[in-house]
Amino acid sequence: MLTIKRLSLELAELLVEGAKQRATEIGVPMCISVVDESGTPITFTRMNGGKVTSATIALDKAYTAAAARKATHEYNHACVPGNLAFGIHTEVGGRLSTVGGGLPVAIDGDIVGGIGISSGTPDQDMDCAQAGIDHLNSALQARS
Amino acid sequence: MLTIKRLSLELAELLVEGAKQRATEIGVPMCISVVDESGTPITFTRMNGGKVTSATIALDKAYTAAAARKATHEYNHACVPGNLAFGIHTEVGGRLSTVGGGLPVAIDGDIVGGIGISSGTPDQDMDCAQAGIDHLNSALQARS
Amino acid sequence: MLTIKRLSLELAELLVEGAKQRATEIGVPMCISVVDESGTPITFTRMNGGKVTSATIALDKAYTAAAARKATHEYNHACVPGNLAFGIHTEVGGRLSTVGGGLPVAIDGDIVGGIGISSGTPDQDMDCAQAGIDHLNSALQARS
Amino acid sequence: MLTIKRLSLELAELLVEGAKQRATEIGVPMCISVVDESGTPITFTRMNGGKVTSATIALDKAYTAAAARKATHEYNHACVPGNLAFGIHTEVGGRLSTVGGGLPVAIDGDIVGGIGISSGTPDQDMDCAQAGIDHLNSALQARS
Repeated sequence: MLTIKRLSLELAELLVEGAKQRATEIGVPMCISVVDESGTPITFTRMNGGKVTSATIALDKAYTAAAARKATHEYNHACVPGNLAFGIHTEVGGRLSTVGGGLPVAIDGDIVGGIGISSGTPDQDMDCAQAGIDHLNSALQARS
Repeated sequence: MLTIKRLSLELAELLVEGAKQRATEIGVPMCISVVDESGTPITFTRMNGGKVTSATIALDKAYTAAAARKATHEYNHACVPGNLAFGIHTEVGGRLSTVGGGLPVAIDGDIVGGIGISSGTPDQDMDCAQAGIDHLNSALQARS
Repeated sequence: MLTIKRLSLELAELLVEGAKQRATEIGVPMCISVVDESGTPITFTRMNGGKVTSATIALDKAYTAAAARKATHEYNHACVPGNLAFGIHTEVGGRLSTVGGGLPVAIDGDIVGGIGISSGTPDQDMDCAQAGIDHLNSALQARS
Repeated sequence: MLTIKRLSLELAELLVEGAKQRATEIGVPMCISVVDESGTPITFTRMNGGKVTSATIALDKAYTAAAARKATHEYNHACVPGNLAFGIHTEVGGRLSTVGGGLPVAIDGDIVGGIGISSGTPDQDMDCAQAGIDHLNSALQARS
């Protein structure tokens, strides 16, 4: 029997809160998706003005980061012609995202979910995804 | 040029809040999706324990209700073998939902979005979708 | 070698013109799709206020009528549980439509394309599809 | 509540008219798609001889330009191996197009839709898309 640690909705909302605060600071309305360790959506927010395409892209970034347990920008670095990982960006029906902005969410060494951000540049998306994780970690530390 | 009214994130979150309260009352953890008038996701919440399949079903119910401007249970009533609308449930790549639980959201006579609920029975899903709309309307009336 | 007769854009636009006139008369803004004998789109019009879902449904109705050379309402009549054709509505990835509103377009006994209408009731959609064909036929007779 | 500006069918037809004139001048029968600000189709024209594949490609270019508010050739420039945006061309189920020929349509600073052209070289497609926008702008200026 396996026992799985999974993000709760409450913790997922902390990820969104942190990402949204950072998106507001940099002035880019973002699509923010959080999924559990199986890649199933927990919560999603499209800030007013977030791009239509980004609703799907944010979900796919979160899905990739959680389900493959790897940041999408790490896949990006590996997905270069000539490298044996090249082509990974078209796998899983195209859902595997190699665009920066998806991060796995780890708690006590376990990957319990993923966060994906889209609407800005990849750097902006990565920045907001990290802000979500930082905000979650701060809240968890304050509780312990 | 056309001028369109669209749900804001703030109003969408009121829909979720109302649906979530009702879901908690009846003890069924729901997936709750809210989309804009074109069917693009605005916000999504899977309460702890909400079904995996329902993440997609809630979205498709909200999409149908907003983009076709009709409650999914109304399509259900029309989608009976022998009726000329039969088969509508497999349209739009299967995204058009005829399962109760999707309602269009109207403000001042304009359909500005849709709400879709899934994880319970269709009756429970419809109940929670209506609770979301009631909660939104109460908040709007209190403001005016 | 085969020689195929195919709707030209000019004739396709006559189909749209006739359907649009009828839609205006009955006060229902329609999505109107015309495809060639292979089911490939020739022209599409979403009247202001036409439903979002109907953009896809109109195309699938036109596709079905042309590519299967049968009106969608004829498939509807056959698609009843217990009948051997039941289930046809989920074929071709769900693109085969059994909802009234798709008609094959025949000229001199050859099926050269199809027209599909969506946004109203199936009866309204069928009415406007027929109006498109009547308008095309009138124009062709006036020329001959 | 948000208030959104959206292309009307009448303005969309001006885009098609301008693109079609330019396509005729350069002797390339084009597929021409116009969508609204959410990426929903408004109108489509396949000139006699337009490519079958291009019916879908034109739509995806218009969808991308409107829904992501960026010209497809700009995505093309960013989608280079080693760049963090690489892989974007397979996102949204492959619908996000990085092939030149899709342009957002802006009126008074608002992106109200998109135009996508396909059947020629990317340069020809871009040329005709721009011709559509120029034609629309000329018509709007003549009215004001």
